[in-house]
Amino acid sequence: MRKAVVLLSGGLDSATVLALAVSEGYACHALSVDYGQRHRIELEAAVRVARALGAAEHKTVRIDLTAFGGSALTDANIAVPTRGVQKDGIPVTYVPARNTIMLSLALAWAEVLGAQDLFFGANAVDYSGYPDCRPEYMRAFERMANLATKAAVEGSRLTLHTPIIALSKAQIIELGIKLGVDYRLTVSCYQADAQGRACGVCDSCRLRRAGFDAAGVADPTRYSTAPASGG
Amino acid sequence: MRKAVVLLSGGLDSATVLALAVSEGYACHALSVDYGQRHRIELEAAVRVARALGAAEHKTVRIDLTAFGGSALTDANIAVPTRGVQKDGIPVTYVPARNTIMLSLALAWAEVLGAQDLFFGANAVDYSGYPDCRPEYMRAFERMANLATKAAVEGSRLTLHTPIIALSKAQIIELGIKLGVDYRLTVSCYQADAQGRACGVCDSCRLRRAGFDAAGVADPTRYSTAPASGG
Repeated sequence: MRKAVVLLSGGLDSATVLALAVSEGYACHALSVDYGQRHRIELEAAVRVARALGAAEHKTVRIDLTAFGGSALTDANIAVPTRGVQKDGIPVTYVPARNTIMLSLALAWAEVLGAQDLFFGANAVDYSGYPDCRPEYMRAFERMANLATKAAVEGSRLTLHTPIIALSKAQIIELGIKLGVDYRLTVSCYQADAQGRACGVCDSCRLRRAGFDAAGVADPTRYSTAPASGG
Repeated sequence: MRKAVVLLSGGLDSATVLALAVSEGYACHALSVDYGQRHRIELEAAVRVARALGAAEHKTVRIDLTAFGGSALTDANIAVPTRGVQKDGIPVTYVPARNTIMLSLALAWAEVLGAQDLFFGANAVDYSGYPDCRPEYMRAFERMANLATKAAVEGSRLTLHTPIIALSKAQIIELGIKLGVDYRLTVSCYQADAQGRACGVCDSCRLRRAGFDAAGVADPTRYSTAPASGG
């Protein structure tokens, strides 16, 4: 059985990607990264999602990015925006080099496992402001990875799969529903409470809810308060 | 003053690179990575080296690569070779994706600091067996980094400096001596004891000692036992 490393945040996108990789027959080694994120509760969601979707194994690796700060997700002094999704520029929820760090960790594990496939739930539609969610970045990472490792030198080619990079949130949800993902298990909110209930007003909540609306699927998210209107 | 992030292991090579970056007028933000390495004592050496060479700041970030294993440096079940430097293939002291992970962390810090320069003491001569010490890997990392960040999208170009990549160990030592590096402060040994004394027989000790010999410089290294002969 072909092994794959799947980055799993505990959110909606990566749960869908894990379900897809499992459905394609990969033995999935799910990797979560505890980087000091505000929404640590997503890491508990990741444990449940990995189990529910049949991951072969799940690891959570800790790296303290609050040592650097520079993002609303890793710096307690920068607030999470709650007044509607930012239209221009790069959101303050962007975490410097986070995807590069997470992919590097996935690369390390893939090499140790002898896996030639990495799955990553990046999305360039809803998060078009994030530089490290763009297809050209993914291609550059893959190229670098294929020069970085002993496995690569020995002829084992690594493929970075980003199957939902060009899908809308509604399309991702439709795909996940087809694959049997239970989205109640996932947490997308940047400031979910200790019970995993979503705020309903941060960018991530707004995009998620609009996705369920557009897909015509009842939103199973547990909210701490009645969600605000608008997407 | 132009800021730079300098990866600092506590060993001979990175100390020389830090001295060089300081001499070129950079405000140097030194970064050490505690990845669960056997030779943790090098991290204490890094603190002393950063101070002695006038780094503007020094941080040690922790990431537990023993979670993945796969190297003599991160897996207690794989022994460090002590019978002479391996001539062919990739040494068991290679740590999967380590340089990619360390450079990614340096990239994150550089972005938060607004630094456009990264210094890395990789060397392709003595460690020609390490895939992630090769110039083509460095170019691919730099290219990826310039697609990865908000800073890059906003037009700030990052340069990855690898000033000693093509130097012999003797040339590195000659450069460091000229720059005033006190090599007694550095630890290169893969299995140094708790006092920082070197074993004298691992690959890293052998290469270091041969470098001092070739440079015609008295070896200031503190050994736990009389070093074995041969390089």
